[in-house]
Amino acid sequence: MARPTPLSGFPEWLPDGRVVEQHVLDTLRRTFELHGFAGIETRAVEPLDQLLRKGETSKEVYVLRRLQEEGEDTDRSGQLGLHFDLTVPFARYVLENAGHLAFPFQRYQIQKVWRGERPQDGRFREFVQADIDVVGAGDLPYHYEVDLPLVMAEALGALREIGVPPVRILVNNRRVAEGFYRGLGLDDVEAVLRSIDKLDKIGPDKVAALLVAEAGATPEQARACLDLAAISGGDATVVDRVRALAATHGVESDLMEQGLAELRQLVEAAAVRAPGVVVADLKIARGLDYYTGSVYETVLVGHEQLGSICSGGRYDTLASDGKQTYPGVGLSIGVSRLVSRLISGGLVRATRGVPAAVLVAVTSEESRPASDAVAAALRARGVPVEVAPTAAKFGKQIKHADRRGIPFVWFPAGDEDGAVDQVKDIRSGDQTDADAATWAPPAEDLHPRVVPAT
Amino acid sequence: MARPTPLSGFPEWLPDGRVVEQHVLDTLRRTFELHGFAGIETRAVEPLDQLLRKGETSKEVYVLRRLQEEGEDTDRSGQLGLHFDLTVPFARYVLENAGHLAFPFQRYQIQKVWRGERPQDGRFREFVQADIDVVGAGDLPYHYEVDLPLVMAEALGALREIGVPPVRILVNNRRVAEGFYRGLGLDDVEAVLRSIDKLDKIGPDKVAALLVAEAGATPEQARACLDLAAISGGDATVVDRVRALAATHGVESDLMEQGLAELRQLVEAAAVRAPGVVVADLKIARGLDYYTGSVYETVLVGHEQLGSICSGGRYDTLASDGKQTYPGVGLSIGVSRLVSRLISGGLVRATRGVPAAVLVAVTSEESRPASDAVAAALRARGVPVEVAPTAAKFGKQIKHADRRGIPFVWFPAGDEDGAVDQVKDIRSGDQTDADAATWAPPAEDLHPRVVPAT
Repeated sequence: MARPTPLSGFPEWLPDGRVVEQHVLDTLRRTFELHGFAGIETRAVEPLDQLLRKGETSKEVYVLRRLQEEGEDTDRSGQLGLHFDLTVPFARYVLENAGHLAFPFQRYQIQKVWRGERPQDGRFREFVQADIDVVGAGDLPYHYEVDLPLVMAEALGALREIGVPPVRILVNNRRVAEGFYRGLGLDDVEAVLRSIDKLDKIGPDKVAALLVAEAGATPEQARACLDLAAISGGDATVVDRVRALAATHGVESDLMEQGLAELRQLVEAAAVRAPGVVVADLKIARGLDYYTGSVYETVLVGHEQLGSICSGGRYDTLASDGKQTYPGVGLSIGVSRLVSRLISGGLVRATRGVPAAVLVAVTSEESRPASDAVAAALRARGVPVEVAPTAAKFGKQIKHADRRGIPFVWFPAGDEDGAVDQVKDIRSGDQTDADAATWAPPAEDLHPRVVPAT
Repeated sequence: MARPTPLSGFPEWLPDGRVVEQHVLDTLRRTFELHGFAGIETRAVEPLDQLLRKGETSKEVYVLRRLQEEGEDTDRSGQLGLHFDLTVPFARYVLENAGHLAFPFQRYQIQKVWRGERPQDGRFREFVQADIDVVGAGDLPYHYEVDLPLVMAEALGALREIGVPPVRILVNNRRVAEGFYRGLGLDDVEAVLRSIDKLDKIGPDKVAALLVAEAGATPEQARACLDLAAISGGDATVVDRVRALAATHGVESDLMEQGLAELRQLVEAAAVRAPGVVVADLKIARGLDYYTGSVYETVLVGHEQLGSICSGGRYDTLASDGKQTYPGVGLSIGVSRLVSRLISGGLVRATRGVPAAVLVAVTSEESRPASDAVAAALRARGVPVEVAPTAAKFGKQIKHADRRGIPFVWFPAGDEDGAVDQVKDIRSGDQTDADAATWAPPAEDLHPRVVPAT
């Protein structure tokens, strides 16, 4: 087999990169569990007809076929595809298991997903998502729309210490946008949202032209939509500015008022619980066409061009079985996008790529059992240990440790009377007597850590 | 959407089942890391031609196709399939990244794999494997063939406390079998192994007939093969019995002697490091046709009919790029098979299906921020907490906790002078004053635990 080359869009990490990814995943999991989210996993596949319920994603789906089936009918019924997100499988899981779940049901789910898109920077064909959602049976109180982005703020904030940049969570509310547009007299809300969504890409003049051409707006209505989109801020004055703008245009809307009350509650709670993180941004339109209340996007400060690393929103109908409706709210972190930037951008580094804190040297193959016994004693007290692969010269064994980043090398005493084990910190060269029943490395050396690359 | 039904062969767990699976995975990971194995993940897909290098697995592979490609040529070049094990991807990863890895390279890998087989009890189409392997560049000392099954013995042994039955690791050695057969005059070693592999299914008489019919054996040679297969035991006398049998038949073989010396070393080390777990069993034939040294199978004691839950062996050529050969030895745990038996067989149970140890009650929606503040104080000290979904009557909130298995309900004091918070153990009914800055649940209630179901 010739040396294989990577597949574009299917990222893999070297062991020290995996240490970074694993640290991120462990941190997210810990935060999610502190907030009471239960971990679940769903199978990687769903029936194709379920994956295609939203027509616009059809081009991204990977369809599965057993090799021996090839050449058979390509009838879609019964065909399976790889899931492209964790929301569709979660909605199906809720319906399938509703009788066994206690509602509101809070779950986190950290899994790979697949999309057959053209790979680009930060956009992969296989990537890890970390989702939290809460789903109610029949109803779901608004406060979860406040709570969930704040859980994500805490989870991402817990990564600050390893060198992850601060995040900014941008929030908007479907009710505000829809109420405002309808109050202006624009009833094709989806068309307005699609135009506003292009603001960052094509600028306000072209968006104004689009609003006129595609959403049936007058130039004045288009201007009002752009004025709304220009409003943003991290405190409740945002609400006052929207209201003032609405008054200017004679807009009166109960729907907008409900949305503004919600937005105020979110911004005010966020100012207390995660100061400086959450910003109301009325130009956020992506997702407003299918979410029904709050909508969220998250940028890494200083890496805005990477796009959102954590998005989501509120669905009044996450799932429905005809009898019962399940509203939900959730967010999804693009873990691979984040980790890829951390590693490729040189923002963080792992202190080592192997778990072992200690390499136990082997004096001769005959005395390997003595080295194994030292290793067992250290492991019994939680110290990760490797035993040297061969009884090479000690200089070579130390080099072996050094190449792996293992900080300590242990020398078993051997059989001479009064001989005692010794351990060497190969970074400083310090070598001291040691007892495998009591010695431990400093806490910061026990496991690989992830630190800012500086 | 009507209520969906499970897909056969694609197991999913309810939240309390996932607690069991997660505990198993965490325990395996911890043991692997204590032994210095670095965690890696590989992409779920490999080029189809790589997956099909061993012809006999072709029927199991799931081939991927982007939906929009359907109808195009079914040319295999460039096609991707889901991996059916973690060994093929690991071999590819080693070749691809050899320049960045330190050898011998020890890695663990815990991921889902897919096989399009007919589902049965303990046999799935999507399942989790947990693999450890060590791979050398050019050479790999024999002692790793001793070490690796003992790491698995420790990992599986660490699950005993939750109610997992003890395991028995059955070992054999290709060199012993091949040396013995060739010494007897049987040169079609693969044919002999294929016949011996059917022993449990069809019994010795039919195997003897097969050996005569398919491996060209005389009845006497067939009898000798069956006598070898009948030898098993947990100490070095096994080696003596093989040697005595060989002498009876005039078998002399350096290859067999090398294999016996290896087998003795393994059995003797295992008797010290994992007493009672490892048994040499000369009838183990599965895998001997492609492994080149040791081969391992593992049964759950009392659940032998489930089949092996942890198998593996030694490859002299795990991978090769033409210039360098990479020998390896490893084992793979069938996590889904194990977990499925634990859950479906009622062997273990989770103490609860949600992470939260405490539900903070909400007196009124106006005072929700006070409940959120209690929750934040508890979480800051590592206590997983949920806040009640609504300000229902306390009785209803307690019932909400009870339905989820949350052991404690916290009542914030409210605004009255001198009022203090209280916490109730809803199992005993005990209610005491408490301070969110200092109170913690008993250690055994802090996280969901997995315990024997008894």
